[in-house]
Amino acid sequence: MSNNNSKTITVVSAHSADFIWRAGGAIALYHDLGYQVRVLCLSFGERGESARLWKNGKNLDEIKQVRRSEAEQAAEILGAKVRFFDAGDYPLQPTAELRDGIVQEFREHQPEIILTHSLEDPYNYDHKRTTDFVLECRILAQAEGYPSQHGILGAPPVFLFEPHQPEQCNFKVDVLLDITSVFERKRKAMECMNAQEHLWEYYTELARRRGMQAGRNSGSAINISGSTIKYAEAFQRVYPYVGGLLV
Amino acid sequence: MSNNNSKTITVVSAHSADFIWRAGGAIALYHDLGYQVRVLCLSFGERGESARLWKNGKNLDEIKQVRRSEAEQAAEILGAKVRFFDAGDYPLQPTAELRDGIVQEFREHQPEIILTHSLEDPYNYDHKRTTDFVLECRILAQAEGYPSQHGILGAPPVFLFEPHQPEQCNFKVDVLLDITSVFERKRKAMECMNAQEHLWEYYTELARRRGMQAGRNSGSAINISGSTIKYAEAFQRVYPYVGGLLV
Amino acid sequence: MSNNNSKTITVVSAHSADFIWRAGGAIALYHDLGYQVRVLCLSFGERGESARLWKNGKNLDEIKQVRRSEAEQAAEILGAKVRFFDAGDYPLQPTAELRDGIVQEFREHQPEIILTHSLEDPYNYDHKRTTDFVLECRILAQAEGYPSQHGILGAPPVFLFEPHQPEQCNFKVDVLLDITSVFERKRKAMECMNAQEHLWEYYTELARRRGMQAGRNSGSAINISGSTIKYAEAFQRVYPYVGGLLV
Amino acid sequence: MSNNNSKTITVVSAHSADFIWRAGGAIALYHDLGYQVRVLCLSFGERGESARLWKNGKNLDEIKQVRRSEAEQAAEILGAKVRFFDAGDYPLQPTAELRDGIVQEFREHQPEIILTHSLEDPYNYDHKRTTDFVLECRILAQAEGYPSQHGILGAPPVFLFEPHQPEQCNFKVDVLLDITSVFERKRKAMECMNAQEHLWEYYTELARRRGMQAGRNSGSAINISGSTIKYAEAFQRVYPYVGGLLV
Amino acid sequence: MSNNNSKTITVVSAHSADFIWRAGGAIALYHDLGYQVRVLCLSFGERGESARLWKNGKNLDEIKQVRRSEAEQAAEILGAKVRFFDAGDYPLQPTAELRDGIVQEFREHQPEIILTHSLEDPYNYDHKRTTDFVLECRILAQAEGYPSQHGILGAPPVFLFEPHQPEQCNFKVDVLLDITSVFERKRKAMECMNAQEHLWEYYTELARRRGMQAGRNSGSAINISGSTIKYAEAFQRVYPYVGGLLV
Amino acid sequence: MSNNNSKTITVVSAHSADFIWRAGGAIALYHDLGYQVRVLCLSFGERGESARLWKNGKNLDEIKQVRRSEAEQAAEILGAKVRFFDAGDYPLQPTAELRDGIVQEFREHQPEIILTHSLEDPYNYDHKRTTDFVLECRILAQAEGYPSQHGILGAPPVFLFEPHQPEQCNFKVDVLLDITSVFERKRKAMECMNAQEHLWEYYTELARRRGMQAGRNSGSAINISGSTIKYAEAFQRVYPYVGGLLV
Repeated sequence: MSNNNSKTITVVSAHSADFIWRAGGAIALYHDLGYQVRVLCLSFGERGESARLWKNGKNLDEIKQVRRSEAEQAAEILGAKVRFFDAGDYPLQPTAELRDGIVQEFREHQPEIILTHSLEDPYNYDHKRTTDFVLECRILAQAEGYPSQHGILGAPPVFLFEPHQPEQCNFKVDVLLDITSVFERKRKAMECMNAQEHLWEYYTELARRRGMQAGRNSGSAINISGSTIKYAEAFQRVYPYVGGLLV
Repeated sequence: MSNNNSKTITVVSAHSADFIWRAGGAIALYHDLGYQVRVLCLSFGERGESARLWKNGKNLDEIKQVRRSEAEQAAEILGAKVRFFDAGDYPLQPTAELRDGIVQEFREHQPEIILTHSLEDPYNYDHKRTTDFVLECRILAQAEGYPSQHGILGAPPVFLFEPHQPEQCNFKVDVLLDITSVFERKRKAMECMNAQEHLWEYYTELARRRGMQAGRNSGSAINISGSTIKYAEAFQRVYPYVGGLLV
Repeated sequence: MSNNNSKTITVVSAHSADFIWRAGGAIALYHDLGYQVRVLCLSFGERGESARLWKNGKNLDEIKQVRRSEAEQAAEILGAKVRFFDAGDYPLQPTAELRDGIVQEFREHQPEIILTHSLEDPYNYDHKRTTDFVLECRILAQAEGYPSQHGILGAPPVFLFEPHQPEQCNFKVDVLLDITSVFERKRKAMECMNAQEHLWEYYTELARRRGMQAGRNSGSAINISGSTIKYAEAFQRVYPYVGGLLV
Repeated sequence: MSNNNSKTITVVSAHSADFIWRAGGAIALYHDLGYQVRVLCLSFGERGESARLWKNGKNLDEIKQVRRSEAEQAAEILGAKVRFFDAGDYPLQPTAELRDGIVQEFREHQPEIILTHSLEDPYNYDHKRTTDFVLECRILAQAEGYPSQHGILGAPPVFLFEPHQPEQCNFKVDVLLDITSVFERKRKAMECMNAQEHLWEYYTELARRRGMQAGRNSGSAINISGSTIKYAEAFQRVYPYVGGLLV
Repeated sequence: MSNNNSKTITVVSAHSADFIWRAGGAIALYHDLGYQVRVLCLSFGERGESARLWKNGKNLDEIKQVRRSEAEQAAEILGAKVRFFDAGDYPLQPTAELRDGIVQEFREHQPEIILTHSLEDPYNYDHKRTTDFVLECRILAQAEGYPSQHGILGAPPVFLFEPHQPEQCNFKVDVLLDITSVFERKRKAMECMNAQEHLWEYYTELARRRGMQAGRNSGSAINISGSTIKYAEAFQRVYPYVGGLLV
Repeated sequence: MSNNNSKTITVVSAHSADFIWRAGGAIALYHDLGYQVRVLCLSFGERGESARLWKNGKNLDEIKQVRRSEAEQAAEILGAKVRFFDAGDYPLQPTAELRDGIVQEFREHQPEIILTHSLEDPYNYDHKRTTDFVLECRILAQAEGYPSQHGILGAPPVFLFEPHQPEQCNFKVDVLLDITSVFERKRKAMECMNAQEHLWEYYTELARRRGMQAGRNSGSAINISGSTIKYAEAFQRVYPYVGGLLV
């Protein structure tokens, strides 16, 4: 059960660093809003996303250990609690056990919002398989007859991360999330990934680009004052927004 | 200039009754939130959507008068101010004058939100032509060099009405707006349309159907308590949402 | 082997009630046309679609029994013969045995038409998995080299049910089937589902809505006489229509 | 009013030869079914589809005359009555007069079925503009308030021709029409187009290709007996099929 | 006629600066390959893309003059010859005269390749209208019967610029053009646009981002040596590639 | 390791004859360019694509032997080396062993280009499953941490075969490959398939059709000289082209 009555937001990451590049801003923002942020890393990305460590001669266990440690540091900076499932990567192959683990996790923590990867990605099968898997686990967690000691899940909205090459993944930008107030922490979290230094600047530039587009879409970039949004993250919604306002 | 500092929401309706069936709930809701709601009727729907009046032997001017009167009654019930452009329908053919009229309207009233028809509709060319036209007028109103005595428009989001046969129009449901609190007034506004009595129940059923789906998408229909959303309207977004929350 | 030379139409339903809500009209109509209608229920929907029974404290076996009994009653009203595979739901996981069972069923009964779920459904993985599975079984049944005591299947057209939220499932309405003559029986069949009373009216309204659209698309609603189509069901085709008329 | 009570099918062709290559089989087939077939040629294709005549030194009027004569011969072979609007091509620019002409034509002849070009064609703007124009004229003809001495049009289905490069035009094959019984006449009609001899074999091969696919989709090619469909034409539907059978 | 036998590549730009941001690299590259590069600016972007000049109190003629001068400087740096049509912007409204002007331009210069804007852009109607217009002019220029003193155009491929918000424009990345060797000149050309300084860095970052993706898609970023592609521009193809290699 | 330093192109074929009909021209062309062409047949198509052999009373082993022999003859004519995985068909079910086999094959031979089936095919599940599988194997072969004695794969482009009914498979024609120079050999290779004689002419006609379209898209069919492209094969790209030219 989630402690101290705070609401929960859950981020499911195929590999141990994805949550940092793709949702680090959202995590820090929801931490600041008082949410408990849970990050579920299905694998460490030990085979597919640790090229430099392999080239440096590390073995599988050492690589997992490095990746775990870096992810924990980054999560701490962002204000998230990270849980590792160590299910293997390249290929990531969701088992019945992993499925039940995620369903029980959703049942126990009752996330208000779920974040995960994009629906398509011709460059990364682990990513799209994770998305497909998470969407199914969410549905199973909603079923009254699914065996569990916890109550059923409601219908939390699901937001999808921006993939590396969005146009090739048919990614649609439904939300431009203003992460200006927390960007400094996202940058620090990214810098925990020692083996992927070339990506620090890449994702900083991406945040600026999405920030500029946020200004364009909210009107502030057009006004004289200049936009106050400097950094943003893009997300795609899976289900319609429901509520009493046009947003 | 809009009076008394209230924010404005503007609804552009190809024919004089569209705004009632398709956005009557949104209008009443935003009226209740303190917005000035402006409805712009490009035509009266005198040729294409007044079959019963023609069959009853009315002539063109009489039909326009009936349609104007009905729309005004409905708008009053919903809390909107309606402006008629009388640009003709079937086919509706936006002229340079009409375009400038809409641009100046947007400049003067600075709507925070714009509502109009769907992007596609193989059953109704006036509808999709209106959408295309409104999107362009919004862009022109944003241009510093467009001649006007009023300042430029920001970047108000645009929401699209649900068309009559949504699947044939590639309509996407991005927002399910809870109109339960104002549905009674929407029903009364619909009942102003004397010649289209068969549509009163049709759009009441549609609101219930969207209301049930709203429950499904927000989790409340699944919980024991039962959904509190009874009626909803569906809308599609044109531009991404920008802000500090995942919505 | 199918008895007494009548042609067969086969409906594959992921859970035991789907065939009623989604194709009850088509079933009764083809029964009246002299077809043998076979309904294949892959599961009872015991975990995912029996919330009220779980809340009432029933156990798994009791729930399956209730669901089986209700489905049999409904099938009898509609004029169909129902076969249960009891393959489990939430998640439904097609096994090699289930696959061979369906292939042999298709080989033995040689359906002229196959009906099943939609290609996509982000709310229901069992549904889309069933569709994918049925389409593959149909192909296997066409293969000369697939081991069986029955002859190969021809190329029966496949029609897809309308899902609960058609726009979210990219459902295309290719056919509006006039079920006016059999709607009363569909309503009675729906009323066999005691635990889902809220859906009786929902699917009655949907049938009216599709009926009104059928009128619009066939011209009768526009003519003075008024449409004679009151109720319809929507289906999507998977393969092109082949024949000597433009239909 | 159409003479002698026969039903009408109307084919709208951007240029004077399109109807032969793309719908010659359908025309002959419906002629044989007792329909009056009306072909409306918006232009002669004098500028864009008469390259050889220009190269042979013919002038504009001569080319129009040749094209008219060839189209009339072909129409006679197919059993159609052809009407020329001479509206110009490359670019074809529908005027208000042409629009009214087509609307009145539809009102007077009350076609049961309308055939025209594809929705998209990046190789031929006249074609897609014709489609767009025809769809609008059909809607105008349905409107009670559109001025005319003839009664309103119902809701005839619209079928779209196969374009030259279907994949580039997002053309969907919804119907494979068996034209085996009339193919010989289609071939003769094609041979009236003296300047486009290279297309005779091209469209014969296409008819065979679509015929073979028709066999695949109807099961006959898979059975031992062999398909009886040798030639077919492909069409896309614009509106759903409405009726009492799953077709 | 194009001088000195060099091949021609033609870039059609809705406003006078578009060609710099969106195709400056391609222009410099083809200049270096010995092509004559022709830039056709349909308007100066005087109303819609000169906000700072309006705010500084310039009038329409002054703004056009500034924009012309900047474009000419940029074109000279890139090695292109620029031709201005001064057709007005916001809205850009292609006339019959402009259409004939572009057709004759294509006939006279026989471009081997044509570049222009994207097919869709909900933020910029001038852009998508230009694309639609250019595609039609290319088709008209191919028609034997279109009046001209120059011979017909062949079938030059068309490449589309990357729009400002590619995901909202359904832009597909078909080509990542390596512009590393000419990027310095593109940067200098961008710096000619004094009023749009904020875009210099924006488009430099974009070129880096596309360059990194080019590495990912060609394998070099994955190899130890590191990619030699630092900067790239993205383009979408309209027509298939034809040739003797799989590219 | 590939012998004698020649570059490699690898074709993955679900069944033993697919590579001939769908890529025989590309294979012969790349052979002539000096490439080593490797064909990987995952199955013999023994169950699903050998109808005539089954009807002639052959057993499973005999059929596999015939299919192997025919494929070897065809491969020799085309200049390819064929490797059989005998993984079974209808359904083809990629195992972990098969996956590792393909990954090691890619690692060892380092193909510069990979060819395989289309992304979708509602008529042939083995085909689309093969494509999905090949795309994943390519990604795994790129991962530094995937266990192998061979070095990692770069990022070879992937080209997809034209499926039997391209419009039903959402197949996009990105490349029209001129196979005129090698068509005679493709025809001979097709004629090795004794049991599928009806397909020889079918695929010859298809090559002519694609050849004519190649002329249309390269301009040569419009010029007086006449196209020199007589035969072509169509392919779809999966990843963007990267390079220094607009192709």
